[in-house]
Amino acid sequence: MAEASHKPVPLLKDELDIVIPTIRNLDFLEMWRPFFQSYHLIIVQDGDPTKVIKVPEGFDYELYNRNDINRILGPKASCISFKDSACRCFGYMVSKKKYIYTIDDDCFVAKDPSGKDINALEQHIKNLLTPSTPHFFNTLYDPYREGADFVRGYPFSLREGAPTAVSHGLWLNIPDYDAPTQLVKPRERNTRYVDAVLTIPKGTLFPMCGMNLAFDRELIGPAMYFGLMGDGQPIGRYDDMWAGWCIKVISDHLGLGVKTGLPYIWHSKASNPFVNLKKEYKGIFWQEDIIPFFQSATLSKDSTSVQQCYIELSKQVKEKLGPIDPYFTKLGDAMVTWIEAWDELNTPSDAKSSKPANGVAAK
Amino acid sequence: MAEASHKPVPLLKDELDIVIPTIRNLDFLEMWRPFFQSYHLIIVQDGDPTKVIKVPEGFDYELYNRNDINRILGPKASCISFKDSACRCFGYMVSKKKYIYTIDDDCFVAKDPSGKDINALEQHIKNLLTPSTPHFFNTLYDPYREGADFVRGYPFSLREGAPTAVSHGLWLNIPDYDAPTQLVKPRERNTRYVDAVLTIPKGTLFPMCGMNLAFDRELIGPAMYFGLMGDGQPIGRYDDMWAGWCIKVISDHLGLGVKTGLPYIWHSKASNPFVNLKKEYKGIFWQEDIIPFFQSATLSKDSTSVQQCYIELSKQVKEKLGPIDPYFTKLGDAMVTWIEAWDELNTPSDAKSSKPANGVAAK
Repeated sequence: MAEASHKPVPLLKDELDIVIPTIRNLDFLEMWRPFFQSYHLIIVQDGDPTKVIKVPEGFDYELYNRNDINRILGPKASCISFKDSACRCFGYMVSKKKYIYTIDDDCFVAKDPSGKDINALEQHIKNLLTPSTPHFFNTLYDPYREGADFVRGYPFSLREGAPTAVSHGLWLNIPDYDAPTQLVKPRERNTRYVDAVLTIPKGTLFPMCGMNLAFDRELIGPAMYFGLMGDGQPIGRYDDMWAGWCIKVISDHLGLGVKTGLPYIWHSKASNPFVNLKKEYKGIFWQEDIIPFFQSATLSKDSTSVQQCYIELSKQVKEKLGPIDPYFTKLGDAMVTWIEAWDELNTPSDAKSSKPANGVAAK
Repeated sequence: MAEASHKPVPLLKDELDIVIPTIRNLDFLEMWRPFFQSYHLIIVQDGDPTKVIKVPEGFDYELYNRNDINRILGPKASCISFKDSACRCFGYMVSKKKYIYTIDDDCFVAKDPSGKDINALEQHIKNLLTPSTPHFFNTLYDPYREGADFVRGYPFSLREGAPTAVSHGLWLNIPDYDAPTQLVKPRERNTRYVDAVLTIPKGTLFPMCGMNLAFDRELIGPAMYFGLMGDGQPIGRYDDMWAGWCIKVISDHLGLGVKTGLPYIWHSKASNPFVNLKKEYKGIFWQEDIIPFFQSATLSKDSTSVQQCYIELSKQVKEKLGPIDPYFTKLGDAMVTWIEAWDELNTPSDAKSSKPANGVAAK
């Protein structure tokens, strides 16, 4: 009985799904058990659908493999990547919850400087439930955190902040480097715990990593599309970057906030830099054009929903990035398909909601 | 002899002046002796010029009181505030060095989490000597720091960074709060050491505090004017804020970077919130208009020097902020006077440089 009081209180346990893309048994969940067991998991199985993925006992989950995705989305399944962790965004689409946390299966529980296990999910939820400050920079970082506030000179009219759409967490141990940096610095490890959460200012883009990421589906979900990567596509490892550029432009347009910083997870394993270089090299060129495109992208006042913004952005992608490579025309089309599929699965009519989207459901 | 090896190596000791505004004896320097003694100090004595300010033995300094300022600048001395720490900017003007560090006399040496004394000046110099990243956000903070780098998705074309103009340091113990926040949270102390330096992105304003601040005089000096505050003026405690808005707009225009974060100093004493409220209350209203003004301010391509930018900004201040209160017309004029005085003291002609600007010089 005494032990029960040490258990973390699961915040928002009926309002949040944990989305995990994987190709292997989910033994990594054992370490997360104290923090994740109260939540529902959505597992997106990549690769061979005949393979059986083992999930440790006691977790509440639904699992989708490629056959499930094809069955549920029909021809629209073309917008969901295969043989790339970009497939995780299918989990965002089938969730019926307000919040999503997504984590990679090579990420473990990190420790804070005092040696205590970090409850990453709890910190993400705190980040999402408190406002952001995209319109002016607060030098003492998150002003809503206990023991902190807005500093002298911070305009009072901006102290209510903006609703937070996204919480981007970081990684101890293996940093999220690109292939060239991995090749140049094979032994570099991130050992520095920076005790801060901050809002990425309006108008500023950032490299969003999908390894340890939470967001409010209702506020930004339809923009959290991880693009076309992997099998049959000319690039990989730009899935989360693509989503990051899109969600930032749309959050800025809609007056929403994006935070980065705490919580840390422990990233255990560096991926193969040679394989990564093959996946990335076109992206390394293309991002030099893509980023100026997103930096200067503006959306019309008529686009007031995330879906409208995303469709408008898809047209600009085709028009402005299409000339770089036919891939971007295909991607622009896939962005539209994604929104159509999202709306199909998320329309709140009785007819739709009575048709469960579940693949394999288990308890 | 063994002790000598523990002494900090004074970086840039012939290229940096430490500027200290004060109305009292500078006993606080005793604690800074190991870090400051190799540098030249410029002391700007505020208030009664007949008062004798004691400086601990062994420091190399020059000291200017109001009579010195009036004598050196003549009628242009009107641009230098009196009975307000804004007078410190006179020290920036008379310095002949490339770098300035300015610190308040109620700031002491802070300790890092390991208990070690923080060499604030050394960290500022590191910040100034490494580039900034104003055009894209790096989620692992300063990419030039040992053990860190640019993360995946950071455009390679931006990895050279931009020259750093300003390094804004923070405060442990008494946070830099405005009067209303001081009144509401009289016991709040900043105990959180955030181990990070980051660039404030282009297009984003921040509340710059003058308590613990370093900058490159050659890159941004003429914009580091602390305005008209204190005696005879309707506001106080907005001197550093004013400078912060101006330097940020001009740094963005000129492609320079502004960093904030480390180093911390220990801020010992909260100023009186009732006195502060009286100084601040007009600023609290005015900043609601001033900040949108600076957020939308743009400078012409023809303004390629800091002086040109500053003169252009002064015209916009008079035009756009003048209607709020006659104070801003006066401030716009003072901005021009400041530049004239700056250029007079800093023109590299033989005639000028042979006329020393020194007040009381001592060793």
